[in-house]
Amino acid sequence: MAIARLHPGLSRPPAPTGGVVPPSHDITDRLVAQLQQTPNPRLREVMIALARHLHQFAIEIELTPQEWEVGIEFLTATGQLSNADRQEFILLSDVLGLSSLVEQIDDRDRRSTESTVLGPFYREHSPRRQAGATIFERPSGTPTRYSGRVLDLDGDPIAGATVDVWQNGADRLYAAQDPSAPPANLRGVFTTDDAGRYCFVGVRPVDYPVPTDGPVGTLLKATSRSEWRAAHIHAIVRADGYRPVTTHLFDDASDHLDSDVVFGVKDSLIKRFIRHETDEGYSVEHDFVLERLL
Amino acid sequence: MAIARLHPGLSRPPAPTGGVVPPSHDITDRLVAQLQQTPNPRLREVMIALARHLHQFAIEIELTPQEWEVGIEFLTATGQLSNADRQEFILLSDVLGLSSLVEQIDDRDRRSTESTVLGPFYREHSPRRQAGATIFERPSGTPTRYSGRVLDLDGDPIAGATVDVWQNGADRLYAAQDPSAPPANLRGVFTTDDAGRYCFVGVRPVDYPVPTDGPVGTLLKATSRSEWRAAHIHAIVRADGYRPVTTHLFDDASDHLDSDVVFGVKDSLIKRFIRHETDEGYSVEHDFVLERLL
Repeated sequence: MAIARLHPGLSRPPAPTGGVVPPSHDITDRLVAQLQQTPNPRLREVMIALARHLHQFAIEIELTPQEWEVGIEFLTATGQLSNADRQEFILLSDVLGLSSLVEQIDDRDRRSTESTVLGPFYREHSPRRQAGATIFERPSGTPTRYSGRVLDLDGDPIAGATVDVWQNGADRLYAAQDPSAPPANLRGVFTTDDAGRYCFVGVRPVDYPVPTDGPVGTLLKATSRSEWRAAHIHAIVRADGYRPVTTHLFDDASDHLDSDVVFGVKDSLIKRFIRHETDEGYSVEHDFVLERLL
Repeated sequence: MAIARLHPGLSRPPAPTGGVVPPSHDITDRLVAQLQQTPNPRLREVMIALARHLHQFAIEIELTPQEWEVGIEFLTATGQLSNADRQEFILLSDVLGLSSLVEQIDDRDRRSTESTVLGPFYREHSPRRQAGATIFERPSGTPTRYSGRVLDLDGDPIAGATVDVWQNGADRLYAAQDPSAPPANLRGVFTTDDAGRYCFVGVRPVDYPVPTDGPVGTLLKATSRSEWRAAHIHAIVRADGYRPVTTHLFDDASDHLDSDVVFGVKDSLIKRFIRHETDEGYSVEHDFVLERLL
């Protein structure tokens, strides 16, 4: 008792014995009270939900100062590794399922082609190419013809829609990852004709691991998770007056459809690739469906 | 119905009309199932709690892809601004109350001096200085004598304890923020004598804003929050065989004790600074209390 009198700070009530930490609610309440002053109502809602979940997470697991330091170092390294050619935070969001979840939330009222994650390798301003052209600018894998239509919800063709595609080569790399590749290799933007048709020649998709030489790779290893993505080609389909869709087409021969590291696979996006009888190569057909903007 | 037959992907059940997004639970469940394979039990527990809170946060606020992009950019910029002299992620954790919360969780069984946040300006290897020495190496504010003892829980002195202190000057800056300052300005490590006493001369603390020229400043402005910290001096007190404590002493004359941006203020750490009658300056006394390591 002597020490408690000398040091008022020591006269706190005895520490709880269980995992409950009562004083922490005080910090949460004080932060939320401050956030209630946020002028923008949406930002207010987002920040208050973030504050509650962040604090509840820390309380639930009884996060230690040492673990917190490791977390700060992890997040800092994730930001520092990101640059124009690599986005480690998107990759982190991808492997934590957040990117797929955000797409799924956005899709909740969608009746068009299902969307899936953008991924970290999309680059704007891919070259516009002629219908039927190749997207590879050097040998990059087994040539594969992609074709189909862009349709509205009634099944009517949409002329002048753009199909912005990108994929990795048989060496598993996207152009954005490979300084020796032509910058626009395996990328291109195609425009649909009056019948809504698009057509181009890419390569057969191959499974590939996400980059594992950064913090996200360390996390995947520490959690004994697969680093593989199921073989796919990316597309963003846009048309004036329609809601754009960011999606993939998956190869049904992939070994990783059930364990895709970013949770991107959806049944409606899995396609059979047909072997050509007359020459080396494959072809696949897919119609994309867009819905009108409200 | 025609379009549904043409496009199997469209035969999904109708989208829910409310804010509930059933398919998303699937992603959470799949991620948690993968994380169950994590060999280290503590990492497993932390990651599963993180996955659940992260996903629940996104579902609760119906996070949009556009907002998600803003979040990714924010986190990336926060990492990229961090370097040896600035840690924007610690600052983010501080203003979100997480740093204080982690300290409070760690303190739940503590009977010693209360702890508070480390903050982003601590630097290891401050110079060891003689008892009674100044920690400022150029004029840095109103000289103030800090003295007291380091005691154990029984009130007995601890000899040879170290008191590692750092503070900002009257110009509001820490040495770590000011390239023109002597690197060890307003920093020093003192060792207690046989009576457990420490003593040094610093400056009277002044309120200061956290750095607002980065992403954290943008967030504070957008949420209409104060950027001020209540005037304080930092200390880490260590002794062999005792649990170290990272804490502050706050100046009871501060205008920001109730609105400290990092939620660091605790009643037991607020001190009255006494004006010297004979010369310019102040003095303050404080005994730090450590508990034995188990």
